[in-house]
Amino acid sequence: MRDPRIDEYARLLVDRSVGVQRGWQVQVRATPLARPLVEAVIEQIARCGAYPLLQMSFELIGGPFAREAPLDVLRTPAPLQRRIWEEADAFIAIWAPENSREGSDLSEERKAALQQATAPMRERTMSMSAPWVIAEYPVLAGAQDAGMTLTEYEQFIFDSVLLDWDAQGERMRKIADVFDDGDEIRIVGTGTDLTVSLAGRRGAVDDGHVNMPGGEVFYSPVEDSAEGVVEFSEFPAVYYGREVVGARFEFEAGRIVDASAQAGQEFLRKTLDTDEGARRLGELGIGCNPGIQRYMKNVAFDEKIDGTVHLAVGNSYTFTGGKNISSIHWDIVKDLRTNGALYVDGRLVQQNGDWRI
Amino acid sequence: MRDPRIDEYARLLVDRSVGVQRGWQVQVRATPLARPLVEAVIEQIARCGAYPLLQMSFELIGGPFAREAPLDVLRTPAPLQRRIWEEADAFIAIWAPENSREGSDLSEERKAALQQATAPMRERTMSMSAPWVIAEYPVLAGAQDAGMTLTEYEQFIFDSVLLDWDAQGERMRKIADVFDDGDEIRIVGTGTDLTVSLAGRRGAVDDGHVNMPGGEVFYSPVEDSAEGVVEFSEFPAVYYGREVVGARFEFEAGRIVDASAQAGQEFLRKTLDTDEGARRLGELGIGCNPGIQRYMKNVAFDEKIDGTVHLAVGNSYTFTGGKNISSIHWDIVKDLRTNGALYVDGRLVQQNGDWRI
Repeated sequence: MRDPRIDEYARLLVDRSVGVQRGWQVQVRATPLARPLVEAVIEQIARCGAYPLLQMSFELIGGPFAREAPLDVLRTPAPLQRRIWEEADAFIAIWAPENSREGSDLSEERKAALQQATAPMRERTMSMSAPWVIAEYPVLAGAQDAGMTLTEYEQFIFDSVLLDWDAQGERMRKIADVFDDGDEIRIVGTGTDLTVSLAGRRGAVDDGHVNMPGGEVFYSPVEDSAEGVVEFSEFPAVYYGREVVGARFEFEAGRIVDASAQAGQEFLRKTLDTDEGARRLGELGIGCNPGIQRYMKNVAFDEKIDGTVHLAVGNSYTFTGGKNISSIHWDIVKDLRTNGALYVDGRLVQQNGDWRI
Repeated sequence: MRDPRIDEYARLLVDRSVGVQRGWQVQVRATPLARPLVEAVIEQIARCGAYPLLQMSFELIGGPFAREAPLDVLRTPAPLQRRIWEEADAFIAIWAPENSREGSDLSEERKAALQQATAPMRERTMSMSAPWVIAEYPVLAGAQDAGMTLTEYEQFIFDSVLLDWDAQGERMRKIADVFDDGDEIRIVGTGTDLTVSLAGRRGAVDDGHVNMPGGEVFYSPVEDSAEGVVEFSEFPAVYYGREVVGARFEFEAGRIVDASAQAGQEFLRKTLDTDEGARRLGELGIGCNPGIQRYMKNVAFDEKIDGTVHLAVGNSYTFTGGKNISSIHWDIVKDLRTNGALYVDGRLVQQNGDWRI
């Protein structure tokens, strides 16, 4: 018999996250490592009278085709693959890598070609023209990065995923209402005093739809509004496997005018120089998942730690009103559980990670 | 580094069996157990500037969708899957089951529904409107059925697959020429004296295209011609996991008028009563693979043992001129290496498995 938590997870993905309907064709992407969840998801889709289109590969990024195909072939998706992206009714991606460093052997040219090939899929999902979800599955590679045994990591994943998402949604909606109604947000913490404007912007509540685990309220801040200083002294900022320790940004009129770090400063500055939009904020997110308490070096979890906020430099989501354009989107988490405070239009709404609303 | 025999196998499948061309979309079906060959095949397809469409599943027959989907859904393929079958330029199926008994838990109703759903694929491949190959990969389940260790079984597979197929093709063509030119074939062996007519029929040579291992010359005998007795005393006849020991058929005017067996007689007779065509011959095949010497309880190999013939009761291939229609096609192998002889129009062409041509 299968671990009943796997069946609960599968029902959550199929019924809530994408809401599979009879007759739908649902692309299911995974690695073979996620077998129990893949089988449970397929069962659940079958019970809905819908079709799973299972696309398993050993590597989620990279692999023999990415290494060997001529660049012009790599850049253009196979027509039949493109059609799946264009016509599938929903997308479930189960994240279960064998090695979190996979794909790191690809040249920049090949990475760019792959990005270009998969653009039709991103267009479909980012525009929300089909329901989709990316779901974390507990594998050894993830446990290792998190500094846990697999058993601990499994417990962690299930604790952060198997929540009453209606109740979590209500709780997050209340938080979003406070920020929706406010204009100026002030973030205070260790080495940090930053204000950003959310005037005219509305938040999105991640209540178990596009991400599993979900659990954040997120905004696109007004692009020229950030003023002050933020210091990410609690956790390293991680981007494409590179770590930056003690990153510190000074903002003027929305733009980072000074960036420094205790380690990885050169990589940090180079990344901020990627393009014009890379020095502006693309996101302010508020972590709200009560099952996530520990930093894991995996931004999909870390940005949801209850009592943290995260700022992304770079591209913003248009569906939350964002206008910043960049080829990067780097989420960096700021812990407010010690010496932290959040103000909305001057009113204290969170102190040391505890809500006052 | 990968076993170099795997790379040789992959080149054989991609270059010879289906002849991949630049820009092609090639469906690759496999289980994760075949990983080394799957990766080598994808590499080889990529090097041709073509696209692999990898469709891996844990089970080749059955699985959670087959068990759980409503019958009407199971019966109708997903439109996107159907398009892959209709539009892919070539098909490579790598046979690597976890368990050779998989799918045996499905009801007859579900098996029939699956057959119906996959009919568009069979129409495409059986009409030869796209190149395809089914390739055996050495897995534990196969080794176990063959009574070998995995290491022995790997050696066996590579010995039967990594042949000079041009040379094998020439050798088989010479054999086919003798039978093409002849009318009456007489098969003599232990408990056996059977004549069949191949008048007007031409043989097909399996020289490393649709099957890997290949190695047979096969015909559709004239449907009302078989006269005499055949006794399959050397090897059991195996069909869908059921074994019949010592099967014996008496033919009159092409039809089996008496069928008996030392074990499994009831199953044998029931199967022959499936439909009208089930009591007539759908195939006469001549095993020609010099790498296959041992009976393996796997008809994909056994029918190619050098020095054997096989008779199939049931449906015949139209591309070899066959007209017999049945929902069964049961290949049964007769060993001629002891007390055996083959005659074409009265001329001895093979004795005790050795060719005299």
